[in-house]
Amino acid sequence: MPGQFPSSQPAPGGSPESAGNPVFALHRGGKLAVAATVPLRDRDDLSLAYTPGVAEVCTAIAERPELALDYTWKSNTVAVVTDGTAVLGLGDIGPLAALPVMEGKAILFKHFGGVDAVPICLDCTDVDELVETIARLAPAFGGINLEDISAPRCFEIEARLRDRLDIPVFHDDQHGTAIVLLAALRNAATVTGRTLAQLRAVISGAGAAGVAIAKILVQAGIGDVAVADSKGIVDAGREDLNPVKRELAALTNRAGLSGSLESALAGADVFIGVSAGTVPESAVATMARDCIITAMANPNPEIHPDVARKYAAVVATGRSDFPNQVNNVLAFPGVFAGALSVRAAQITESMKLAAADALAAVVADELSPECVIPSPFDPRVAPAVTAAVAQAAREAGVARG
Amino acid sequence: MPGQFPSSQPAPGGSPESAGNPVFALHRGGKLAVAATVPLRDRDDLSLAYTPGVAEVCTAIAERPELALDYTWKSNTVAVVTDGTAVLGLGDIGPLAALPVMEGKAILFKHFGGVDAVPICLDCTDVDELVETIARLAPAFGGINLEDISAPRCFEIEARLRDRLDIPVFHDDQHGTAIVLLAALRNAATVTGRTLAQLRAVISGAGAAGVAIAKILVQAGIGDVAVADSKGIVDAGREDLNPVKRELAALTNRAGLSGSLESALAGADVFIGVSAGTVPESAVATMARDCIITAMANPNPEIHPDVARKYAAVVATGRSDFPNQVNNVLAFPGVFAGALSVRAAQITESMKLAAADALAAVVADELSPECVIPSPFDPRVAPAVTAAVAQAAREAGVARG
Repeated sequence: MPGQFPSSQPAPGGSPESAGNPVFALHRGGKLAVAATVPLRDRDDLSLAYTPGVAEVCTAIAERPELALDYTWKSNTVAVVTDGTAVLGLGDIGPLAALPVMEGKAILFKHFGGVDAVPICLDCTDVDELVETIARLAPAFGGINLEDISAPRCFEIEARLRDRLDIPVFHDDQHGTAIVLLAALRNAATVTGRTLAQLRAVISGAGAAGVAIAKILVQAGIGDVAVADSKGIVDAGREDLNPVKRELAALTNRAGLSGSLESALAGADVFIGVSAGTVPESAVATMARDCIITAMANPNPEIHPDVARKYAAVVATGRSDFPNQVNNVLAFPGVFAGALSVRAAQITESMKLAAADALAAVVADELSPECVIPSPFDPRVAPAVTAAVAQAAREAGVARG
Repeated sequence: MPGQFPSSQPAPGGSPESAGNPVFALHRGGKLAVAATVPLRDRDDLSLAYTPGVAEVCTAIAERPELALDYTWKSNTVAVVTDGTAVLGLGDIGPLAALPVMEGKAILFKHFGGVDAVPICLDCTDVDELVETIARLAPAFGGINLEDISAPRCFEIEARLRDRLDIPVFHDDQHGTAIVLLAALRNAATVTGRTLAQLRAVISGAGAAGVAIAKILVQAGIGDVAVADSKGIVDAGREDLNPVKRELAALTNRAGLSGSLESALAGADVFIGVSAGTVPESAVATMARDCIITAMANPNPEIHPDVARKYAAVVATGRSDFPNQVNNVLAFPGVFAGALSVRAAQITESMKLAAADALAAVVADELSPECVIPSPFDPRVAPAVTAAVAQAAREAGVARG
C-alpha cells in the first residue's frame, strides 16, 4: 500500500478531535491493547516464558498439535476478519477505514464473552484470495468471525472456509442477526398467543442478514417466509436470481407470492426489515391483526416505530433508543465463548438455534410487547448463550474438549 | 488444516503438565490476552465505541487514511509473523508449534517496549504466497516483525515486503541480532583499546544472523570480516554460492581468505558464532592476542566460555547464565517503539546503527570485560534505543509524525 499515508504530519488543528467530538476523543490511540498474562520480572521468568523453556512447549505441540489448545492463547482467541467491503451502512470503505469497527467488535467479544479477539483487515477483495489468506492465517486462532464482507461474496467465502478449516467460522452479519431476530420473534409470537408455525413473515432485504434470517426461520419451523430484494419478492419464476437467491426461492415462499414487497405484506403476520428501504404506511396498514414488525435498518428503520405501533402488537428495531433492540452483541460473544469452551470444530445450525432459544428464554418470565428481547447489558445473556451453544456442540458431536 | 486436531479429548493424565513441569504450568492457556482500553459500562459507552458513533471515525479514515494512526491501535501495534520454518534451534516445526515463541515475542514487545504485538502464524511456506499474505494483512498493523523464517527465503521475503509496504518491516533474527552484536563488539573494542577499524572478524554461520551481522559490521567500518558456512569461508571464487552468499562474498573478506573456518581464525581478532557448529580449542588458540569471542549458539556455544576465556580478552554468549548475553530483546522492543513513535515508513540502516550505538552507550561508564552489553532487564535500555531510533528516523526523512 505505498502512498497510503501522505508523508506529512497531521495538519495542525485539522484533526476531527479538535472540534471536541467525544467519539474521536474516545478513539484517540484506538480501543484495544495486548497484555501479558504471565510475569516477566527476571531472568527466571524469561527462561520459562521465552527461551530456553518455550522450546519444550513448541516441541510438544509439534508432536501433538491438539496441545496448542492447552498451552497457547489459540483456544480463547478469535480473528475478526473483514475486507472492508460492507462496513455498517457505509459500504465499501476499504480495510483500513473498517479497523475502528473491528476494534469495537473485539472489545465487545472481550467485555461480553471473555473472548480475546484480534482485528484483521485484509487488503484484498477477490473471493479466492480472501479464502486463501484467511485459511493461511488461521493456525494462531481458535475461530474466525467474518465481518462486514459484502453479499453475495460473503456466502461463498464462509462456505469454503467452513469446509477447509477445523475451527468455527461464523459470519456475524448473517448468523448473529439471524439468531437474535429468531429469539425476538419466538417471544413476540408467545406474547401474541401464537407459535412460529402460525406466522407468515416477509423479509425486506436479500443480503447477508436477509438470507440468513430466512434460512433460520425455515429451520425453526416458521409457517411461511418470503424475501424481497430491490426487484420485489424472490420467487422461483424470476430470471434474474443469483445462485444464492435461487436457493432462497426454493427454500422459502411456499405461498408462491410474487411482485412487490408491499403486495406481499397484505395479511402478513411479520415484517422483518434488513434493508435500507422504507415501507409506506399504507402497506403496513394491510398487515394482519396483532402483527409483528422488526424494522432493523439503522439509523432509519424501514417503518418508524411510531408508525409501526399503530398497527403492530410488537415492534422491534436495531436502535438502542426504542424498546426491543435487535443487537448482534446479544449473540456473537456467547456463541464463540460456547464454541471455544468445548473446542468445537464448527458452529452448526443446531448451535445457532440453541443460541436463539437460550436468548429468548432469558426474558421468558418478564415477556411483554416492550420486552421480547433482553438488553445488551443484561448480565444473564452471555452465560445463557454460552452454556446452550456448548451443550448443542456436544450433542452435535463437534466438541473436542 | 482439516484433521489438524484429532477429534478427541486430551488423553487424561497425558498432559506434559501433569509431570509438574513449570514451563507447561506457566504456558497453560497461553501467555497473551487482548484488553479494551475504553469503557463499556452502558448504552452511551456502546454508542461511542461502537455503533452509531464509530461510523464517524470510519468515514474520517476513509477520507484521510493517515487518521488511522490517530484513532485506531495501528500506530502502536506490530504483527509478529512466522511460517514456522526456522523456530529457535528446532527448525521447521510448522506455524502452530511456533505459536508459543510468537506469544513470547509479543509479551516481550509489550513489557520492554510498550508495543502491542499480535502473533500471526502462517500456514504457507512459498515465498510469493508469504509476501502476498503478509501484504494483505498489513492494514491493521503499524509494523511487521518477521520471525523464525528460514534462510535464504527470509532475505527475499523481507526485501519484497519492504518495497511493497509503507510500514516498518524488520526480520528480527537478522537485524535484532546484528544490532546487539555490533553494540557488544563496539564496547569490546573499547575495553581492549581498539577501534572497529582495527579488527578482523570471522563469522561462523551464513544464515539470517550471519549475513545481517556481516553487513552491519561492514556498514559500521569493521577492518575486515569473513563469513564461513558449512563449506568453509565464503569467497568470490566459490562456485556453490546462492545469490545472497555471492553478495556476501562481494561485500566481505577483503583479505581474500578461503578454505576452512579454522584456518581463517589464525590471527583473527574476533570470532562471532551464529551456527550450530563447534570450534576446536586448537583453532581458538591461533587467534590474535586480546581477541574477542562471541559464541552465540544456544544452548551450546560454539566455543565454551571456560575455553574461550583462556585466550580471549572479552567473551560473550547467547546464554543468560554467563556474562555478556547477546539477547535480541535488547533491540527489537526499542527499535519498533522508536519507529512507531515517529510513524516511520521503514527501518533504515541508519536507524539500526543508531540503535546499536545507543545500546552500547548504556554501559559506557561501567565497561569491563564482563560488561560490554547491558542486561535485558536494565531499565535504561529500551528508552535509550527508542529515542535513538526515533531521532535517526527523523534524520533519515522516514518519520511521518
